[in-house]
Amino acid sequence: MFSNITRVEIQFGDCDPAGIVYYPNYFRFFDNATAAMLSAAFAMHKRNWLDHFGIAGIPMVDTGARFIRPSSFGDVIEIRSEITGLGRSSFAVKHSVFRDGDLAIEAHEKRVWVVRGEDGGIRSAPLPEDVRSLLSQTK
Amino acid sequence: MFSNITRVEIQFGDCDPAGIVYYPNYFRFFDNATAAMLSAAFAMHKRNWLDHFGIAGIPMVDTGARFIRPSSFGDVIEIRSEITGLGRSSFAVKHSVFRDGDLAIEAHEKRVWVVRGEDGGIRSAPLPEDVRSLLSQTK
Amino acid sequence: MFSNITRVEIQFGDCDPAGIVYYPNYFRFFDNATAAMLSAAFAMHKRNWLDHFGIAGIPMVDTGARFIRPSSFGDVIEIRSEITGLGRSSFAVKHSVFRDGDLAIEAHEKRVWVVRGEDGGIRSAPLPEDVRSLLSQTK
Amino acid sequence: MFSNITRVEIQFGDCDPAGIVYYPNYFRFFDNATAAMLSAAFAMHKRNWLDHFGIAGIPMVDTGARFIRPSSFGDVIEIRSEITGLGRSSFAVKHSVFRDGDLAIEAHEKRVWVVRGEDGGIRSAPLPEDVRSLLSQTK
Repeated sequence: MFSNITRVEIQFGDCDPAGIVYYPNYFRFFDNATAAMLSAAFAMHKRNWLDHFGIAGIPMVDTGARFIRPSSFGDVIEIRSEITGLGRSSFAVKHSVFRDGDLAIEAHEKRVWVVRGEDGGIRSAPLPEDVRSLLSQTK
Repeated sequence: MFSNITRVEIQFGDCDPAGIVYYPNYFRFFDNATAAMLSAAFAMHKRNWLDHFGIAGIPMVDTGARFIRPSSFGDVIEIRSEITGLGRSSFAVKHSVFRDGDLAIEAHEKRVWVVRGEDGGIRSAPLPEDVRSLLSQTK
Repeated sequence: MFSNITRVEIQFGDCDPAGIVYYPNYFRFFDNATAAMLSAAFAMHKRNWLDHFGIAGIPMVDTGARFIRPSSFGDVIEIRSEITGLGRSSFAVKHSVFRDGDLAIEAHEKRVWVVRGEDGGIRSAPLPEDVRSLLSQTK
Repeated sequence: MFSNITRVEIQFGDCDPAGIVYYPNYFRFFDNATAAMLSAAFAMHKRNWLDHFGIAGIPMVDTGARFIRPSSFGDVIEIRSEITGLGRSSFAVKHSVFRDGDLAIEAHEKRVWVVRGEDGGIRSAPLPEDVRSLLSQTK
Protein backbone atom coordinates (compact mmCIF):
# COMPACT_ATOMS: atom_id res chain seq x y z
CA MET A 1 0.00 0.00 0.00
CA PHE A 2 1.06 3.62 -0.15
CA SER A 3 4.09 4.73 1.86
CA ASN A 4 6.13 7.86 2.34
CA ILE A 5 9.27 9.00 4.13
CA THR A 6 9.72 12.25 6.04
CA ARG A 7 12.67 13.49 8.08
CA VAL A 8 12.63 15.57 11.25
CA GLU A 9 15.62 17.35 12.74
CA ILE A 10 15.23 17.30 16.51
CA GLN A 11 15.29 20.83 17.91
CA PHE A 12 16.47 21.96 21.35
CA GLY A 13 12.90 22.79 22.41
CA ASP A 14 11.65 19.32 21.42
CA CYS A 15 13.71 17.87 24.27
CA ASP A 16 13.08 17.69 27.99
CA PRO A 17 15.34 18.05 31.05
CA ALA A 18 16.51 14.45 30.54
CA GLY A 19 18.01 15.68 27.26
CA ILE A 20 15.85 13.48 25.03
CA VAL A 21 12.77 14.16 22.92
CA TYR A 22 9.76 14.79 25.16
CA TYR A 23 7.64 11.87 23.92
CA PRO A 24 4.37 13.79 23.29
CA ASN A 25 6.26 15.65 20.56
CA TYR A 26 6.61 12.40 18.59
CA PHE A 27 2.84 12.35 18.15
CA ARG A 28 3.10 15.82 16.65
CA PHE A 29 5.76 14.48 14.25
CA PHE A 30 3.52 11.50 13.40
CA ASP A 31 0.52 13.74 12.70
CA ASN A 32 2.68 15.74 10.31
CA ALA A 33 4.00 12.52 8.74
CA THR A 34 0.50 11.21 8.05
CA ALA A 35 -0.52 14.55 6.54
CA ALA A 36 2.59 14.45 4.33
CA MET A 37 1.88 10.86 3.26
CA LEU A 38 -1.69 11.66 2.21
CA SER A 39 -0.53 14.82 0.46
CA ALA A 40 1.93 12.66 -1.50
CA ALA A 41 -0.77 10.07 -2.28
CA PHE A 42 -3.30 12.69 -3.37
CA ALA A 43 -0.67 14.90 -5.05
CA MET A 44 -2.02 17.99 -3.29
CA HIS A 45 -1.45 19.69 0.07
CA LYS A 46 -3.67 18.68 3.00
CA ARG A 47 -5.31 22.09 3.10
CA ASN A 48 -6.41 21.41 -0.45
CA TRP A 49 -7.42 17.76 -0.15
CA LEU A 50 -9.70 18.50 2.80
CA ASP A 51 -11.65 20.77 0.45
CA HIS A 52 -11.19 18.57 -2.59
CA PHE A 53 -12.79 15.57 -0.88
CA GLY A 54 -15.30 17.68 1.06
CA ILE A 55 -14.22 16.30 4.44
CA ALA A 56 -13.90 17.92 7.85
CA GLY A 57 -10.74 16.02 8.72
CA ILE A 58 -9.23 12.65 9.54
CA PRO A 59 -9.53 12.52 13.34
CA MET A 60 -7.49 10.01 15.30
CA VAL A 61 -9.46 7.28 17.01
CA ASP A 62 -6.65 5.02 18.19
CA THR A 63 -2.90 5.45 18.36
CA GLY A 64 0.05 3.95 20.14
CA ALA A 65 3.81 3.88 20.11
CA ARG A 66 6.61 1.64 21.35
CA PHE A 67 9.77 3.55 22.17
CA ILE A 68 12.96 1.57 21.57
CA ARG A 69 15.74 4.19 21.40
CA PRO A 70 15.66 7.82 22.49
CA SER A 71 16.70 10.69 20.21
CA SER A 72 18.29 14.00 21.19
CA PHE A 73 18.89 17.54 20.03
CA GLY A 74 20.48 17.56 16.58
CA ASP A 75 19.51 14.01 15.63
CA VAL A 76 17.73 13.64 12.32
CA ILE A 77 15.10 10.94 12.47
CA GLU A 78 13.55 9.27 9.46
CA ILE A 79 9.86 8.43 9.66
CA ARG A 80 8.71 5.71 7.26
CA SER A 81 4.91 5.86 7.13
CA GLU A 82 2.68 3.39 5.37
CA ILE A 83 -0.99 2.62 4.97
CA THR A 84 -1.61 -0.74 6.63
CA GLY A 85 -5.35 -1.10 6.27
CA LEU A 86 -8.44 0.40 4.67
CA GLY A 87 -11.80 0.08 6.40
CA ARG A 88 -15.15 1.25 5.12
CA SER A 89 -14.65 4.75 6.57
CA SER A 90 -11.30 4.46 8.29
CA PHE A 91 -7.69 3.70 7.54
CA ALA A 92 -4.69 2.46 9.47
CA VAL A 93 -1.15 3.81 9.39
CA LYS A 94 2.15 2.46 10.67
CA HIS A 95 5.12 4.75 11.38
CA SER A 96 8.60 3.29 11.77
CA VAL A 97 11.16 5.74 13.07
CA PHE A 98 14.84 5.22 12.33
CA ARG A 99 17.82 7.01 13.80
CA ASP A 100 21.24 6.31 12.30
CA GLY A 101 19.71 3.32 10.57
CA ASP A 102 18.38 1.70 13.75
CA LEU A 103 14.70 1.27 14.55
CA ALA A 104 13.88 3.80 17.28
CA ILE A 105 10.06 3.80 17.49
CA GLU A 106 7.16 1.84 16.07
CA ALA A 107 3.79 3.55 16.07
CA HIS A 108 0.33 2.91 14.67
CA GLU A 109 -2.76 5.00 14.04
CA LYS A 110 -6.36 4.46 13.12
CA ARG A 111 -8.10 7.47 11.62
CA VAL A 112 -11.62 8.11 10.42
CA TRP A 113 -12.79 9.89 7.28
CA VAL A 114 -15.36 12.42 8.49
CA VAL A 115 -17.71 14.94 6.96
CA ARG A 116 -19.61 17.72 8.62
CA GLY A 117 -23.32 17.07 8.95
CA GLU A 118 -26.09 19.64 8.57
CA ASP A 119 -26.25 19.97 12.36
CA GLY A 120 -22.62 21.16 12.45
CA GLY A 121 -21.42 17.91 14.01
CA ILE A 122 -19.12 15.44 12.27
CA ARG A 123 -19.87 11.87 11.19
CA SER A 124 -17.85 9.19 9.48
CA ALA A 125 -18.26 8.75 5.75
CA PRO A 126 -17.19 5.96 3.39
CA LEU A 127 -13.71 6.31 1.89
CA PRO A 128 -14.28 7.41 -1.74
CA GLU A 129 -13.21 4.92 -4.40
CA ASP A 130 -10.41 7.15 -5.71
CA VAL A 131 -9.04 7.63 -2.19
CA ARG A 132 -9.15 3.88 -1.68
CA SER A 133 -7.35 3.38 -4.94
CA LEU A 134 -4.68 6.03 -4.30
CA LEU A 135 -3.94 4.70 -0.82
CA SER A 136 -3.72 1.13 -2.13
CA GLN A 137 -1.06 1.84 -4.73
CA THR A 138 2.46 0.67 -4.05
CA LYS A 139 4.71 3.65 -4.41
CA MET B 1 -7.64 49.25 35.69
CA PHE B 2 -8.69 45.60 35.84
CA SER B 3 -6.19 43.03 37.06
CA ASN B 4 -6.14 39.32 37.80
CA ILE B 5 -3.78 36.71 39.22
CA THR B 6 -3.25 33.18 37.90
CA ARG B 7 -0.81 30.51 38.98
CA VAL B 8 1.01 27.94 36.87
CA GLU B 9 2.81 24.88 38.16
CA ILE B 10 5.78 24.24 35.90
CA GLN B 11 5.61 20.75 34.44
CA PHE B 12 8.52 18.50 33.38
CA GLY B 13 7.59 18.88 29.73
CA ASP B 14 7.58 22.69 29.96
CA CYS B 15 11.34 22.58 30.50
CA ASP B 16 14.24 22.14 28.09
CA PRO B 17 17.56 20.29 28.29
CA ALA B 18 18.98 23.21 30.32
CA GLY B 19 16.43 22.25 32.99
CA ILE B 20 14.52 25.54 32.84
CA VAL B 21 11.23 26.56 31.25
CA TYR B 22 11.59 26.66 27.47
CA TYR B 23 10.79 30.35 27.00
CA PRO B 24 8.19 30.02 24.19
CA ASN B 25 6.01 28.24 26.77
CA TYR B 26 5.77 31.45 28.78
CA PHE B 27 3.85 33.04 25.91
CA ARG B 28 1.39 30.15 26.14
CA PHE B 29 1.03 30.87 29.87
CA PHE B 30 0.53 34.58 29.12
CA ASP B 31 -2.14 33.86 26.51
CA ASN B 32 -3.98 31.77 29.10
CA ALA B 33 -3.51 34.52 31.71
CA THR B 34 -5.03 37.18 29.46
CA ALA B 35 -7.99 34.90 28.67
CA ALA B 36 -8.46 34.30 32.39
CA MET B 37 -8.30 38.03 33.15
CA LEU B 38 -10.93 38.90 30.58
CA SER B 39 -13.10 36.01 31.75
CA ALA B 40 -12.88 37.47 35.28
CA ALA B 41 -13.66 40.99 34.01
CA PHE B 42 -16.61 39.83 31.91
CA ALA B 43 -17.75 37.22 34.45
CA MET B 44 -18.01 34.56 31.76
CA HIS B 45 -15.66 32.06 30.10
CA LYS B 46 -13.78 33.17 26.98
CA ARG B 47 -15.67 30.69 24.81
CA ASN B 48 -18.81 32.50 25.90
CA TRP B 49 -17.60 36.10 25.71
CA LEU B 50 -16.39 35.64 22.15
CA ASP B 51 -20.00 34.87 21.25
CA HIS B 52 -21.49 37.35 23.69
CA PHE B 53 -19.61 40.29 22.14
CA GLY B 54 -19.83 38.91 18.61
CA ILE B 55 -16.09 38.99 18.04
CA ALA B 56 -13.76 36.67 16.17
CA GLY B 57 -11.00 36.98 18.75
CA ILE B 58 -8.41 39.25 20.32
CA PRO B 59 -5.34 38.62 18.14
CA MET B 60 -1.91 39.67 19.35
CA VAL B 61 -0.28 42.50 17.45
CA ASP B 62 2.71 43.19 19.66
CA THR B 63 4.25 41.35 22.57
CA GLY B 64 7.52 41.20 24.41
CA ALA B 65 9.10 39.82 27.57
CA ARG B 66 12.12 40.49 29.70
CA PHE B 67 13.41 37.40 31.50
CA ILE B 68 14.98 38.10 34.87
CA ARG B 69 15.00 34.74 36.68
CA PRO B 70 14.49 31.26 35.25
CA SER B 71 11.96 28.79 36.65
CA SER B 72 12.18 25.02 36.74
CA PHE B 73 10.11 21.85 37.05
CA GLY B 74 7.93 21.99 40.15
CA ASP B 75 8.08 25.76 40.62
CA VAL B 76 4.74 27.51 40.95
CA ILE B 77 4.80 30.89 39.29
CA GLU B 78 2.30 33.65 39.93
CA ILE B 79 1.24 35.77 36.98
CA ARG B 80 -0.19 39.18 37.86
CA SER B 81 -1.94 40.50 34.76
CA GLU B 82 -3.39 43.97 34.37
CA ILE B 83 -4.95 46.14 31.72
CA THR B 84 -2.55 49.02 31.09
CA GLY B 85 -4.27 50.85 28.26
CA LEU B 86 -7.45 51.02 26.22
CA GLY B 87 -7.31 52.22 22.61
CA ARG B 88 -10.20 52.71 20.23
CA SER B 89 -10.13 49.07 19.13
CA SER B 90 -7.20 47.68 21.07
CA PHE B 91 -6.03 47.14 24.62
CA ALA B 92 -2.70 46.68 26.36
CA VAL B 93 -1.81 44.14 29.04
CA LYS B 94 1.13 43.81 31.39
CA HIS B 95 2.10 40.50 32.98
CA SER B 96 4.43 40.40 35.97
CA VAL B 97 5.63 36.93 36.88
CA PHE B 98 6.75 36.17 40.40
CA ARG B 99 8.53 33.09 41.72
CA ASP B 100 9.00 32.76 45.46
CA GLY B 101 8.06 36.43 45.77
CA ASP B 102 10.74 37.68 43.36
CA LEU B 103 10.04 39.27 40.02
CA ALA B 104 10.98 36.72 37.37
CA ILE B 105 9.56 38.11 34.10
CA GLU B 106 7.92 41.29 32.86
CA ALA B 107 5.86 41.03 29.71
CA HIS B 108 3.52 43.22 27.71
CA GLU B 109 0.91 42.65 25.03
CA LYS B 110 -1.15 44.71 22.65
CA ARG B 111 -4.25 42.98 21.33
CA VAL B 112 -6.95 44.02 18.89
CA TRP B 113 -10.71 43.56 19.15
CA VAL B 114 -11.72 41.99 15.85
CA VAL B 115 -14.94 40.97 14.14
CA ARG B 116 -15.40 38.83 11.09
CA GLY B 117 -16.44 40.75 7.99
CA GLU B 118 -18.86 39.56 5.34
CA ASP B 119 -15.92 38.50 3.17
CA GLY B 120 -14.78 36.03 5.84
CA GLY B 121 -11.78 38.17 6.76
CA ILE B 122 -11.32 39.88 10.10
CA ARG B 123 -11.16 43.61 10.85
CA SER B 124 -10.73 45.65 13.99
CA ALA B 125 -13.84 47.03 15.68
CA PRO B 126 -14.26 49.65 18.42
CA LEU B 127 -14.20 48.34 21.99
CA PRO B 128 -17.84 48.37 23.16
CA GLU B 129 -18.64 50.80 25.98
CA ASP B 130 -19.42 48.02 28.46
CA VAL B 131 -16.12 46.29 27.68
CA ARG B 132 -14.31 49.58 28.12
CA SER B 133 -16.07 50.08 31.42
CA LEU B 134 -15.44 46.54 32.71
CA LEU B 135 -11.75 46.68 31.82
CA SER B 136 -11.38 50.11 33.46
CA GLN B 137 -12.67 49.02 36.84
CA THR B 138 -10.21 48.62 39.65
CA LYS B 139 -10.67 45.15 41.04
CA MET C 1 -3.53 -0.41 43.37
CA PHE C 2 -2.79 3.27 43.73
CA SER C 3 -4.92 5.78 41.82
CA ASN C 4 -5.23 9.52 41.54
CA ILE C 5 -7.45 12.10 39.86
CA THR C 6 -6.29 15.29 38.14
CA ARG C 7 -8.27 17.88 36.21
CA VAL C 8 -7.23 19.89 33.17
CA GLU C 9 -9.01 22.94 31.82
CA ILE C 10 -8.63 22.92 28.06
CA GLN C 11 -7.01 26.14 26.87
CA PHE C 12 -7.44 27.89 23.51
CA GLY C 13 -3.91 27.00 22.47
CA ASP C 14 -4.45 23.30 23.23
CA CYS C 15 -6.90 23.16 20.33
CA ASP C 16 -6.39 22.92 16.58
CA PRO C 17 -8.16 24.47 13.58
CA ALA C 18 -10.89 21.80 13.92
CA GLY C 19 -11.68 23.42 17.28
CA ILE C 20 -10.84 20.34 19.35
CA VAL C 21 -7.84 19.37 21.46
CA TYR C 22 -4.85 18.63 19.22
CA TYR C 23 -4.37 15.00 20.25
CA PRO C 24 -0.59 15.10 20.95
CA ASN C 25 -1.44 17.47 23.81
CA TYR C 26 -3.31 14.67 25.58
CA PHE C 27 -0.01 12.81 25.98
CA ARG C 28 1.38 15.91 27.67
CA PHE C 29 -1.63 15.84 30.02
CA PHE C 30 -1.07 12.13 30.67
CA ASP C 31 2.62 12.65 31.45
CA ASN C 32 1.62 15.30 33.98
CA ALA C 33 -1.08 13.00 35.39
CA THR C 34 1.38 10.15 35.96
CA ALA C 35 3.84 12.53 37.65
CA ALA C 36 1.01 13.79 39.88
CA MET C 37 -0.07 10.23 40.74
CA LEU C 38 3.44 9.19 41.78
CA SER C 39 3.88 12.42 43.73
CA ALA C 40 0.68 11.55 45.60
CA ALA C 41 1.83 7.97 46.21
CA PHE C 42 5.28 9.03 47.38
CA ALA C 43 3.98 12.12 49.23
CA MET C 44 6.63 14.31 47.63
CA HIS C 45 6.98 16.27 44.39
CA LYS C 46 8.49 14.49 41.36
CA ARG C 47 11.54 16.74 41.42
CA ASN C 48 12.15 15.42 44.92
CA TRP C 49 11.34 11.75 44.40
CA LEU C 50 13.72 11.51 41.44
CA ASP C 51 16.49 12.48 43.89
CA HIS C 52 15.00 10.56 46.82
CA PHE C 53 15.04 7.26 44.94
CA GLY C 54 18.25 8.04 43.07
CA ILE C 55 16.72 7.54 39.63
CA ALA C 56 17.25 9.30 36.33
CA GLY C 57 13.57 9.15 35.40
CA ILE C 58 10.67 6.94 34.41
CA PRO C 59 10.92 6.90 30.60
CA MET C 60 7.99 5.75 28.52
CA VAL C 61 8.45 2.51 26.64
CA ASP C 62 4.93 1.91 25.38
CA THR C 63 1.83 4.07 25.29
CA GLY C 64 -1.46 4.23 23.47
CA ALA C 65 -4.83 5.93 23.54
CA ARG C 66 -8.31 5.35 22.22
CA PHE C 67 -10.20 8.57 21.55
CA ILE C 68 -13.94 8.30 22.09
CA ARG C 69 -15.17 11.89 22.45
CA PRO C 70 -13.37 15.13 21.56
CA SER C 71 -12.96 18.01 24.01
CA SER C 72 -12.82 21.72 23.25
CA PHE C 73 -11.68 25.06 24.64
CA GLY C 74 -13.14 25.63 28.08
CA ASP C 75 -13.97 22.00 28.82
CA VAL C 76 -12.62 20.63 32.08
CA ILE C 77 -11.56 17.03 31.74
CA GLU C 78 -11.03 14.66 34.61
CA ILE C 79 -8.16 12.19 34.32
CA ARG C 80 -8.45 9.12 36.55
CA SER C 81 -5.03 7.48 36.64
CA GLU C 82 -4.25 4.14 38.22
CA ILE C 83 -1.38 1.73 38.52
CA THR C 84 -2.39 -1.43 36.66
CA GLY C 85 0.73 -3.53 36.96
CA LEU C 86 4.14 -3.76 38.59
CA GLY C 87 6.99 -5.51 36.80
CA ARG C 88 10.49 -6.13 38.09
CA SER C 89 11.70 -2.73 36.88
CA SER C 90 8.63 -1.31 35.18
CA PHE C 91 5.07 -0.33 35.95
CA ALA C 92 1.88 0.09 33.97
CA VAL C 93 -0.62 2.95 34.17
CA LYS C 94 -4.14 3.38 32.87
CA HIS C 95 -5.68 6.82 32.33
CA SER C 96 -9.44 7.19 31.90
CA VAL C 97 -10.52 10.64 30.78
CA PHE C 98 -14.02 11.86 31.53
CA ARG C 99 -15.81 14.92 30.21
CA ASP C 100 -19.17 15.83 31.70
CA GLY C 101 -19.23 12.39 33.26
CA ASP C 102 -18.77 10.51 29.99
CA LEU C 103 -15.72 8.44 29.10
CA ALA C 104 -13.76 10.45 26.51
CA ILE C 105 -10.40 8.66 26.24
CA GLU C 106 -8.78 5.48 27.51
CA ALA C 107 -5.00 5.42 27.56
CA HIS C 108 -2.27 3.14 28.86
CA GLU C 109 1.42 3.50 29.57
CA LYS C 110 4.35 1.28 30.42
CA ARG C 111 7.27 3.05 32.05
CA VAL C 112 10.67 1.87 33.24
CA TRP C 113 12.48 2.72 36.45
CA VAL C 114 15.96 3.81 35.34
CA VAL C 115 19.19 4.83 36.98
CA ARG C 116 22.20 6.50 35.45
CA GLY C 117 25.19 4.21 35.05
CA GLU C 118 28.82 5.17 35.53
CA ASP C 119 29.17 5.57 31.76
CA GLY C 120 26.53 8.33 31.77
CA GLY C 121 23.96 6.12 30.06
CA ILE C 122 20.74 4.92 31.69
CA ARG C 123 19.72 1.37 32.56
CA SER C 124 16.65 -0.17 34.15
CA ALA C 125 16.76 -0.94 37.86
CA PRO C 126 14.46 -3.04 40.07
CA LEU C 127 11.54 -1.19 41.64
CA PRO C 128 12.51 -0.68 45.31
CA GLU C 129 10.35 -2.53 47.84
CA ASP C 130 8.92 0.69 49.32
CA VAL C 131 7.97 1.96 45.85
CA ARG C 132 6.33 -1.39 45.12
CA SER C 133 4.46 -1.17 48.39
CA LEU C 134 3.35 2.46 47.93
CA LEU C 135 2.12 1.84 44.38
CA SER C 136 0.24 -1.28 45.49
CA GLN C 137 -1.82 0.43 48.13
CA THR C 138 -5.46 1.09 47.46
CA LYS C 139 -6.04 4.75 47.99
CA MET D 1 26.87 41.32 10.41
CA PHE D 2 26.07 37.63 10.03
CA SER D 3 22.67 36.63 8.68
CA ASN D 4 20.89 33.43 7.74
CA ILE D 5 17.59 32.33 6.21
CA THR D 6 15.44 29.41 7.34
CA ARG D 7 12.04 28.26 6.14
CA VAL D 8 9.21 26.74 8.13
CA GLU D 9 6.19 24.97 6.69
CA ILE D 10 3.24 25.67 8.95
CA GLN D 11 1.72 22.44 10.21
CA PHE D 12 -1.89 21.77 11.18
CA GLY D 13 -0.96 21.45 14.86
CA ASP D 14 0.85 24.82 14.82
CA CYS D 15 -2.52 26.53 14.34
CA ASP D 16 -5.30 27.37 16.76
CA PRO D 17 -9.10 27.33 16.51
CA ALA D 18 -8.95 30.68 14.67
CA GLY D 19 -7.12 28.77 11.92
CA ILE D 20 -3.90 30.78 12.21
CA VAL D 21 -0.54 30.03 13.81
CA TYR D 22 -0.85 30.07 17.61
CA TYR D 23 1.59 32.91 18.27
CA PRO D 24 3.69 31.22 21.01
CA ASN D 25 4.80 28.78 18.31
CA TYR D 26 6.55 31.62 16.46
CA PHE D 27 8.96 31.94 19.39
CA ARG D 28 9.76 28.25 18.97
CA PHE D 29 10.47 28.93 15.29
CA PHE D 30 12.65 31.93 16.23
CA ASP D 31 14.63 29.88 18.75
CA ASN D 32 15.30 27.32 16.03
CA ALA D 33 16.21 30.10 13.58
CA THR D 34 18.78 31.60 15.96
CA ALA D 35 20.30 28.16 16.59
CA ALA D 36 20.49 27.60 12.82
CA MET D 37 22.11 31.03 12.27
CA LEU D 38 24.82 30.39 14.86
CA SER D 39 25.39 26.90 13.51
CA ALA D 40 25.92 28.47 10.08
CA ALA D 41 28.25 31.13 11.51
CA PHE D 42 30.27 28.60 13.51
CA ALA D 43 30.07 25.91 10.81
CA MET D 44 29.03 23.31 13.34
CA HIS D 45 25.74 22.13 14.88
CA LYS D 46 24.55 23.81 18.08
CA ARG D 47 25.03 20.61 20.07
CA ASN D 48 28.65 20.78 19.04
CA TRP D 49 29.29 24.52 19.46
CA LEU D 50 27.93 24.47 23.01
CA ASP D 51 30.76 22.04 23.82
CA HIS D 52 33.27 23.66 21.50
CA PHE D 53 32.98 27.03 23.24
CA GLY D 54 32.48 25.52 26.69
CA ILE D 55 29.20 27.32 27.31
CA ALA D 56 26.02 26.28 29.06
CA GLY D 57 23.77 27.99 26.53
CA ILE D 58 22.58 31.31 25.14
CA PRO D 59 19.57 32.09 27.33
CA MET D 60 17.04 34.70 26.23
CA VAL D 61 16.91 37.85 28.32
CA ASP D 62 14.65 39.99 26.18
CA THR D 63 12.47 39.26 23.20
CA GLY D 64 9.54 40.77 21.38
CA ALA D 65 7.55 40.49 18.20
CA ARG D 66 5.22 42.63 16.13
CA PHE D 67 2.66 40.60 14.21
CA ILE D 68 1.64 42.15 10.90
CA ARG D 69 0.06 39.30 8.91
CA PRO D 70 -1.14 35.92 10.15
CA SER D 71 -0.05 32.64 8.56
CA SER D 72 -2.02 29.42 8.26
CA PHE D 73 -1.69 25.69 7.75
CA GLY D 74 0.35 24.96 4.63
CA ASP D 75 1.99 28.38 4.36
CA VAL D 76 5.77 28.36 4.09
CA ILE D 77 7.29 31.26 5.93
CA GLU D 78 10.80 32.55 5.40
CA ILE D 79 12.68 33.75 8.46
CA ARG D 80 15.57 36.13 7.75
CA SER D 81 17.69 36.28 10.89
CA GLU D 82 20.60 38.64 11.44
CA ILE D 83 22.96 39.65 14.20
CA THR D 84 22.20 43.29 15.03
CA GLY D 85 24.53 43.92 17.93
CA LEU D 86 27.40 42.46 19.94
CA GLY D 87 27.78 43.35 23.62
CA ARG D 88 30.52 42.29 25.96
CA SER D 89 28.72 39.06 26.88
CA SER D 90 25.51 39.33 24.89
CA PHE D 91 24.28 39.61 21.34
CA ALA D 92 21.16 40.88 19.61
CA VAL D 93 19.21 39.23 16.81
CA LYS D 94 16.49 40.45 14.49
CA HIS D 95 14.10 38.08 12.74
CA SER D 96 12.05 39.26 9.77
CA VAL D 97 9.36 36.83 8.69
CA PHE D 98 8.07 36.89 5.14
CA ARG D 99 5.07 35.10 3.69
CA ASP D 100 4.56 35.23 -0.07
CA GLY D 101 7.12 38.02 -0.17
CA ASP D 102 5.29 40.26 2.32
CA LEU D 103 6.63 41.14 5.75
CA ALA D 104 4.54 39.18 8.27
CA ILE D 105 6.41 39.56 11.59
CA GLU D 106 9.34 41.53 12.97
CA ALA D 107 10.99 40.14 16.08
CA HIS D 108 14.07 40.85 18.14
CA GLU D 109 16.07 38.98 20.76
CA LYS D 110 18.80 39.66 23.22
CA ARG D 111 20.71 36.62 24.41
CA VAL D 112 23.53 36.11 26.85
CA TRP D 113 26.65 33.95 26.51
CA VAL D 114 26.74 31.90 29.70
CA VAL D 115 29.06 29.38 31.32
CA ARG D 116 28.41 27.08 34.23
CA GLY D 117 30.16 28.10 37.41
CA GLU D 118 31.69 25.77 39.97
CA ASP D 119 28.56 26.10 42.11
CA GLY D 120 26.46 24.61 39.30
CA GLY D 121 24.83 27.96 38.54
CA ILE D 122 25.28 29.90 35.33
CA ARG D 123 26.93 33.29 34.81
CA SER D 124 27.56 35.48 31.80
CA ALA D 125 30.95 35.31 30.14
CA PRO D 126 32.63 37.57 27.55
CA LEU D 127 32.01 36.66 23.92
CA PRO D 128 35.27 35.03 22.72
CA GLU D 129 37.14 36.94 20.03
CA ASP D 130 36.56 34.28 17.39
CA VAL D 131 32.81 34.26 18.10
CA ARG D 132 32.80 38.03 17.86
CA SER D 133 34.63 37.83 14.58
CA LEU D 134 32.42 35.09 13.10
CA LEU D 135 29.21 36.91 14.05
CA SER D 136 30.52 40.18 12.61
CA GLN D 137 31.20 38.84 9.15
CA THR D 138 28.87 39.80 6.36
CA LYS D 139 27.70 36.61 4.78
